[in-house]
Amino acid sequence: MKIIDSPEEMQKQARLLIQSGKYISFVPTMGYLHDGHVSLMRIARENADVVVVSIFVNPMQFGPNEDFKNYPRDFEHDEKLCREAGVDILFYPNPENMYLDDHSIWLSEESLSTVLCGASRPGHFRGVCTIVAKLLNIVQPDFMVLGEKDAQQLRVLRRMVRDMNFSVKIIAAPTVREADGLAMSSRNKYLTPAERKEAVCLFQSLEKAKALFAAGERNAENLKAAMRAVIEATSGKADYIEIVDDETLQSVPFDEAQGRQTLEKPALAALAVKFSSARLIDNTVLR
Amino acid sequence: MKIIDSPEEMQKQARLLIQSGKYISFVPTMGYLHDGHVSLMRIARENADVVVVSIFVNPMQFGPNEDFKNYPRDFEHDEKLCREAGVDILFYPNPENMYLDDHSIWLSEESLSTVLCGASRPGHFRGVCTIVAKLLNIVQPDFMVLGEKDAQQLRVLRRMVRDMNFSVKIIAAPTVREADGLAMSSRNKYLTPAERKEAVCLFQSLEKAKALFAAGERNAENLKAAMRAVIEATSGKADYIEIVDDETLQSVPFDEAQGRQTLEKPALAALAVKFSSARLIDNTVLR
Repeated sequence: MKIIDSPEEMQKQARLLIQSGKYISFVPTMGYLHDGHVSLMRIARENADVVVVSIFVNPMQFGPNEDFKNYPRDFEHDEKLCREAGVDILFYPNPENMYLDDHSIWLSEESLSTVLCGASRPGHFRGVCTIVAKLLNIVQPDFMVLGEKDAQQLRVLRRMVRDMNFSVKIIAAPTVREADGLAMSSRNKYLTPAERKEAVCLFQSLEKAKALFAAGERNAENLKAAMRAVIEATSGKADYIEIVDDETLQSVPFDEAQGRQTLEKPALAALAVKFSSARLIDNTVLR
Repeated sequence: MKIIDSPEEMQKQARLLIQSGKYISFVPTMGYLHDGHVSLMRIARENADVVVVSIFVNPMQFGPNEDFKNYPRDFEHDEKLCREAGVDILFYPNPENMYLDDHSIWLSEESLSTVLCGASRPGHFRGVCTIVAKLLNIVQPDFMVLGEKDAQQLRVLRRMVRDMNFSVKIIAAPTVREADGLAMSSRNKYLTPAERKEAVCLFQSLEKAKALFAAGERNAENLKAAMRAVIEATSGKADYIEIVDDETLQSVPFDEAQGRQTLEKPALAALAVKFSSARLIDNTVLR
């Protein structure tokens, strides 16, 4: 496995690979890797000749009061895990090489980004779009593997690739979960032991919504209320609990006659819940 | 010469060219081509194996009261001129293929874009950056040739390429002028015969500034006043007449002791002048 820290060198290597007829799969990460990331690497491997993983804790996608400084980092562990997963190139740039002091270009998505996490975290998706566009220009992959756990990020980046004509195909990878159902996340580390037990409530609230939906419930307000009840039985505080159109991420249409929101097209059930030091997200598609 | 109208097909051709070891030079244009464009194509040819020219009147870089609808178009003439210039691929997309109805991604530059034309034309450089980023992703060139006439555009796009890690090298091409000195521009067509004679005032005001600078004048206010006097002797109305730092495009530092702006580093003298239906720009670097 090659470890590359220079964007120019990474770009040069990518060009050589392309010229030699190779196809590149790319997994962008912020490090502190877990089995969820490993599953992305496995899917990357199945789709191309060369697997590139990037590790970069992108300061520009954190708000001023968020956890950029405390975000967990463990390069030694990450490197070992990448080697074991058969990664070919680990791209690990310095922040100073990624953002010059007078950096002044931003890429923003102005529709899908305005709701859910975008509403709670102003500037977050601008930071995500900007860094991923930079990484795509550096790594020049044919495939990019993204986790379904970050549902809004997946949809925003699909839109970015479409609207900016990036020549990359996005592959969505199913969320990997702990034995009890908690979605794997680097931020689970922030949970106290008691909170860790409670944190399964995100998964349970989604399971509740799925069960009600499967039983015929099509009133979004009723589904959200049922989800909320599961969260409120714990110490977690809901940042948002939403059911939105899976494509546009806008509220599902309000049915005047029935006086309620009703689900006809596939809908995304998504929530963010805050524990003392952790803000966790999870989602499922109702269809 | 191949004419390609589909972004997907253009991208596919570019990939094949890169895989076969070819280098691509790219000249983005809005059509209605003139000798200035031909000089860009000549420079493109000198630098790579394959020359791609795009013709696309980008609606997103025109303001609501600007000349998008009236912008001159003559594809037959443009096609002939490209053939004669030895262009390999003419990329001529439909607007509907470039911007879908729910397009929601924008690339903006937030420092260099705020002054000069950016101050007079809000949203202009956001439109320019977005379309050029899209074209770079579609054409995947090694070189992009841009005219020095659009001085601010050149600097904004250099910044975009740097900050977004595009793997393209920008080549700046000297402004091509009519016999009397008027910079060639598709918008010169808007001038009445009387205005056409007067329009040389932009060039003359820059020549005046250059002569005074060469004679030792370092007071930006004096240089701007001399430029303004040349414009005010015509029917043209100055939109702006500025002398700014050539790198940052910010005002040159104010010298408290002398009570005036003084030029120490290379400076850009730039102006925009409105005639009845034409807004013309020109510039020169004072060093």
